[in-house]
Amino acid sequence: MSDTVLYDYWRSSASYRLRIALNMVAETFRTVPVDILAKEHRSQEHLARNPQGLVPVLEIDGHSFTQSLAVIEYLDETRGGAFLPGDSVGRQRVRALSYVIAMEIHPVCNSHVGAHVMSITGGGEEARVAWMRKFIGEGLAAFEVLLDSPSTGAFCHGDRPSMADICLVPQVYNARRWGVDLSACPRLVAIADRCVELKPFAKAHPDQVKPSGS
Amino acid sequence: MSDTVLYDYWRSSASYRLRIALNMVAETFRTVPVDILAKEHRSQEHLARNPQGLVPVLEIDGHSFTQSLAVIEYLDETRGGAFLPGDSVGRQRVRALSYVIAMEIHPVCNSHVGAHVMSITGGGEEARVAWMRKFIGEGLAAFEVLLDSPSTGAFCHGDRPSMADICLVPQVYNARRWGVDLSACPRLVAIADRCVELKPFAKAHPDQVKPSGS
Repeated sequence: MSDTVLYDYWRSSASYRLRIALNMVAETFRTVPVDILAKEHRSQEHLARNPQGLVPVLEIDGHSFTQSLAVIEYLDETRGGAFLPGDSVGRQRVRALSYVIAMEIHPVCNSHVGAHVMSITGGGEEARVAWMRKFIGEGLAAFEVLLDSPSTGAFCHGDRPSMADICLVPQVYNARRWGVDLSACPRLVAIADRCVELKPFAKAHPDQVKPSGS
Repeated sequence: MSDTVLYDYWRSSASYRLRIALNMVAETFRTVPVDILAKEHRSQEHLARNPQGLVPVLEIDGHSFTQSLAVIEYLDETRGGAFLPGDSVGRQRVRALSYVIAMEIHPVCNSHVGAHVMSITGGGEEARVAWMRKFIGEGLAAFEVLLDSPSTGAFCHGDRPSMADICLVPQVYNARRWGVDLSACPRLVAIADRCVELKPFAKAHPDQVKPSGS
């Protein structure tokens, strides 16, 4: 069996998702840090792994995969991750919740987008923080409304963590980093806080993989 | 059997995706236009359908669903859409290609993001066009590199249209609308042009559903 390798940046939400998912299926893996601040993700070496120049990239089963949610679906199919419920209506809901974060919040607030906002507004760090707070805040507010459903349990969907929780936890970590006001989102905060107590989530926390000196 | 209803905006890429997918599985549906320009998507009525205030929303099988890609997966599971190949490695690739567009390009270039860019830069239409061209152009350039694979055939993955093609066609339509230079992307342009000749794609084209006067 070939080595499972995660090309990782400690503070990347998408990398954090994959660390959680790999831990949940008890997949042994080693991480190779890609230092975004040092622009290692734009190096020829990394662009050969992913022409988008993004982390994470996962080498597994002899393949090299990009796009964290596509990898989570792969782990679900090949490792029985149970990241999605068994019924199609439930699967639709978990995917939709996941995409509210992974499509509508995260890419709009990705580091290269934030840097571009600073560049075109000339507003410096203040412009970036305002951008992050607006789009993370609005996105999580919609997520909170979507949790007002009989399908929500101790976790986003029922009483076990799903792909939606794997997306939520890194986004809440990221929201706190940018100082987003989460006081109107008690439900998602409670779920995220419940998740981080679980071992696969705890082991995946950015502080656990942060290189010394970062 | 309950009525299948698509809450649709003619020029929305995500709505366009769903029209293609519904046509591919030969699902009969009626559309209810939601006029984004008239801000109908921000009305209480539409926010009750989708707290994100986005189109499309699909009512099907007695449920109300949001998030186009989660709906496409649902149609795949319940209607045998064959939007994804049968093998997990192929499914990972098709999902990853789909997400390169549906996560990294489309949300960053959504209308409310473009409007916000105009507002914070004060650069008017010129600022919005530059934003669109940058993020659509860079995203499609990465997509073009990902197509350089033995798995690419007449379509993005093999010789039948998949979810990746369903994402590609509306994005190419949108790129042309914004005047993105696609000369470095001959492969994806050829695939998109091949798709639009097929009936499910042709019937879903924005010009086919554009309300008179738009």
